[in-house]
Amino acid sequence: MTRDWRSIAEQKQRERESRIPPAWRLDRIDQSSKSVLSVPRQCGLLDENELRITEEPDATALLRKLADGTYTSLDVVTAFCKRAAIAQQLTNCLTEIFFHDAIKRAKYLDEAFLRTGKPIGPLHGLPISLKDVFNVKGYDASIGIASLCFKPATANSALVEQLLSLGAVLYVKTNVPQTLMALDSHNNVFGRTLNPANRLLTPGGSSGGEGALIALRGSVLGIGTDVGGSIRIPAMCNGLFGVKPSHGRVPYAGLEGGGLPGNNRLTMEATAGPIAHSIRDCHMLLRVVSDSAPWASDPDVLPQGWEGQVSLQSGRLVQQPARPLLVGVAKSDGYAVPHPPIARLMDEVMRVLQDRSASPPPAVEIQVVELDISPLWSRCLKLFNALQSTEGANHAFDLLEDTGEPLSPWLQGRLRRRPQKSLDASRALLAQKSELQALALSIWSEDGGYWRTTKQTGTQGGTRSPRHQRRRLDVFLCPVAPHPVLPVDRWNTVNYTGAFNLLDLPAGVLPVRPFAAADKAGEFPDDDDAATTAPLNGWDRVNRELWTRADRDVYVGSSLGVQVVAPRLQERKLLECMALLEVALRPLAAGSERRVSRL
Amino acid sequence: MTRDWRSIAEQKQRERESRIPPAWRLDRIDQSSKSVLSVPRQCGLLDENELRITEEPDATALLRKLADGTYTSLDVVTAFCKRAAIAQQLTNCLTEIFFHDAIKRAKYLDEAFLRTGKPIGPLHGLPISLKDVFNVKGYDASIGIASLCFKPATANSALVEQLLSLGAVLYVKTNVPQTLMALDSHNNVFGRTLNPANRLLTPGGSSGGEGALIALRGSVLGIGTDVGGSIRIPAMCNGLFGVKPSHGRVPYAGLEGGGLPGNNRLTMEATAGPIAHSIRDCHMLLRVVSDSAPWASDPDVLPQGWEGQVSLQSGRLVQQPARPLLVGVAKSDGYAVPHPPIARLMDEVMRVLQDRSASPPPAVEIQVVELDISPLWSRCLKLFNALQSTEGANHAFDLLEDTGEPLSPWLQGRLRRRPQKSLDASRALLAQKSELQALALSIWSEDGGYWRTTKQTGTQGGTRSPRHQRRRLDVFLCPVAPHPVLPVDRWNTVNYTGAFNLLDLPAGVLPVRPFAAADKAGEFPDDDDAATTAPLNGWDRVNRELWTRADRDVYVGSSLGVQVVAPRLQERKLLECMALLEVALRPLAAGSERRVSRL
Repeated sequence: MTRDWRSIAEQKQRERESRIPPAWRLDRIDQSSKSVLSVPRQCGLLDENELRITEEPDATALLRKLADGTYTSLDVVTAFCKRAAIAQQLTNCLTEIFFHDAIKRAKYLDEAFLRTGKPIGPLHGLPISLKDVFNVKGYDASIGIASLCFKPATANSALVEQLLSLGAVLYVKTNVPQTLMALDSHNNVFGRTLNPANRLLTPGGSSGGEGALIALRGSVLGIGTDVGGSIRIPAMCNGLFGVKPSHGRVPYAGLEGGGLPGNNRLTMEATAGPIAHSIRDCHMLLRVVSDSAPWASDPDVLPQGWEGQVSLQSGRLVQQPARPLLVGVAKSDGYAVPHPPIARLMDEVMRVLQDRSASPPPAVEIQVVELDISPLWSRCLKLFNALQSTEGANHAFDLLEDTGEPLSPWLQGRLRRRPQKSLDASRALLAQKSELQALALSIWSEDGGYWRTTKQTGTQGGTRSPRHQRRRLDVFLCPVAPHPVLPVDRWNTVNYTGAFNLLDLPAGVLPVRPFAAADKAGEFPDDDDAATTAPLNGWDRVNRELWTRADRDVYVGSSLGVQVVAPRLQERKLLECMALLEVALRPLAAGSERRVSRL
Repeated sequence: MTRDWRSIAEQKQRERESRIPPAWRLDRIDQSSKSVLSVPRQCGLLDENELRITEEPDATALLRKLADGTYTSLDVVTAFCKRAAIAQQLTNCLTEIFFHDAIKRAKYLDEAFLRTGKPIGPLHGLPISLKDVFNVKGYDASIGIASLCFKPATANSALVEQLLSLGAVLYVKTNVPQTLMALDSHNNVFGRTLNPANRLLTPGGSSGGEGALIALRGSVLGIGTDVGGSIRIPAMCNGLFGVKPSHGRVPYAGLEGGGLPGNNRLTMEATAGPIAHSIRDCHMLLRVVSDSAPWASDPDVLPQGWEGQVSLQSGRLVQQPARPLLVGVAKSDGYAVPHPPIARLMDEVMRVLQDRSASPPPAVEIQVVELDISPLWSRCLKLFNALQSTEGANHAFDLLEDTGEPLSPWLQGRLRRRPQKSLDASRALLAQKSELQALALSIWSEDGGYWRTTKQTGTQGGTRSPRHQRRRLDVFLCPVAPHPVLPVDRWNTVNYTGAFNLLDLPAGVLPVRPFAAADKAGEFPDDDDAATTAPLNGWDRVNRELWTRADRDVYVGSSLGVQVVAPRLQERKLLECMALLEVALRPLAAGSERRVSRL
């Protein structure tokens, strides 16, 4: 044991605190209120201009004002540094703080702008927050593990280099759970990140620091990573937009992922993606990254600019009218039955997409097909878990034991050292992954066996159309989790998100509406059919208890979202569809109380 | 042991023979002549029309005449079936023969054409030959292993399905070496394939059956696979064009690759690609495959149609003039020193590209930069071999021992059962692969450290240009092997081709000119510098002996080619560059005798 984890954590936390200027410290934090979302407005640390800047709707809006000179980068960066400092004090969301560097860079960018009269890139002057996994030269990427602290990075991650070349300003890194393999964000070095909307609930993980920071508008746009839901779950928990791309879209080289080099090849590839206040910001971030030749600096990234990616218009002439959007809805993974409010949400979503009378005039017609992909989806969890345990967590335990660090509460009883799998076992798991990926190709096609072809859903039941006429889904919708945002340390199954890491499908989260008081109603099916009433398995039993044994009041006001999933590497189409769906689902946000009470 | 391999091989060969109609049998085969290339013209089995069809310049020319009704598919397919039967008798290049199915399908396509007045797809009516690894329903994919015989495929490979949907006609599968891991094409079931241009030389492997068949014009276009050179080496050996794409470009799902399921993930991904008579045929094949949504049927294939792929015009407006092509030349892998005629060929290639006075007016200016990538390239061989031996050949030996089958001559002493590697070792190798792939990104950039920046090569030696102005290579040229086409069972190192499987770079072969009598001249450097005279290593020693101890007469008349390598997944740009380079290098073919004698 080189040194005790406690002293490292103390030193690390002191260092972090020292990087917040005294003038930016909150006098006191009201511990009585569940939500701290209004504190930045009310605490008096931010002036009118700083409030205006940090409450611009999104990064796209800010970038316009940076590009036209309305704001200087120095104004914008200073405002977000201050607000991030406040967010840190309220939710403990930050790990590394580099306000000084950020302000220096903002000045440099402002000077360049003055000199040349134009932005240096599409992200000119924009502060972007990063999950702690990214290497930023001169700062730790300890991912909350004591033995990785005080080992500053000597090179930037590929994506960090790229964001800088596009004109972005980096100012903070954000908190993660120990080992990155948890759905909260607690570790022994930096402590626990809280959900700013309700400090009893989890901010999600592993990009939970990003989620909390962005929800408090201490960041306008953040980059997370996701190997089981780590972008999507914090997006859901904080009412934000988040997109997990397929592997090969966004540079991931040079990250501290917590695993042994090469382990990603034996398991699943984590990917990096945006967490944001708007779908257009997610779109913008993915577009500018794709359009700056990221494949020149990360050998895993595909040479495919944004315009070259599959879009809703692909294969059609510009003159042709837009065809209807064809959207699947998959309500359950067949493994953990969604809680009544989640099942209701998915019903509402289907209904509002089918009955567009309440919606604004649609940009494009939307057709909906209900899917039952549970035979495939339910197989994913076991394989996901088996792949994740290929290495037996030995490397993680080695790192922890190096400083005597204990497991985080959530991981206790869940993570333990196991014998590493054999090469034969590992190979067989990789073969199974390929097999499931091949099977999943059938989801998209009318004749793949997963579409519920009833008249209601608008498919031609029974009549098999010729191959080239067979319809294909653009995207499908499904829950982000089988439950609402949970209290800390309660997250159970990740199959609703992890399956799409296993299948390498791009997936994003759209916030839909808050959990209403009326959402507390509803029980699991209670009819005579034992098959529908008994828990399906151990995961399902635990999941049900999160509803049946919970004080449901805790859920009220939390954000309910849906997940949107597209075919592999079709991020552009995913983002186009998410933008259309976001508009189409707005009536649910507007009329949620009324709608729920009618059910 | 289920059954002895000899009886299986006999039965398999009888079956194959029975599928050649008696009328298509050669009376006698002149064993005295080294080359059998003229036999199809002279044997009398092919009528004028059949000769005209099979000697059309290439598939593109044939497809035009199929599409305009000049030829029926029945005419074309029958002619190629007959000529393939002749090729089989001359070189033993076929494995599975399905002439009956092909002729039936040709009739069906002709009827469809008559009925609708148009081709059913871009490959309408075109016979395409397939390496034995492809599964075609109802036929074996035994890859020359006795224990895999008489187990007909129950489903088509993904690419087979696609070729059929594009209108192609499948009629034969072609021979491979035992285990696919050799650079000749001999196995115990089907025997040895010969090089039709010189039956003392190897046709190459593992797609050697394709090479021999296409060289004899028993096929106009074939599909091979390549995990170490298996498309490129037969292309070189038979004076043909061949392209190995990056993984993810051409469907590879559902092949019999001879390995355990999932083993590709632990080693390197083999890829499928064309072997052809022209570069435009390679281009056409890759284009039509990319443009028919192959990603819908193979989860590893990227959603990127041909027009969306990186091209020489990418990032430039249509109105802008073409910028000069920037071509690197890497003369040696730093591991096995090229034989004098290969070194000379590379010098000639550089010279003719630099001095375009002898060439036809160029479509585009070509600039040449000499590279020294040997520090990187020489590291590839060891890693390539280590990855390939991950599984210890246990599966192959299991298959062979099942019927008591001995090793092929070339594999004796080279392949043996070894303990499978540990998961730790495998992971470390995969990490090394990623590391080398990342290092290789520097090859393309002016400031990557691999360019020899002398004035002769036209780079701005010494002056470091700003990042966005730094020049990048379009492609680079290098030898296909450090030696000419060898006699059978002499191939030694595959690093000149295998490195680009390891790095996953698309690479193609251009035939340049025949080995001339004057090419027999030249010895390895014999100056006072021991470092340049002593063999660099064991591979190099063996390689040198293939020159110093050889009867060099055997090489005369064999084809010399060059390899062209592009950045990962930039097949479209590779093909565009190969087309330009093929034209630029034509003076070498025309004046090879004169040129060589001048040196």
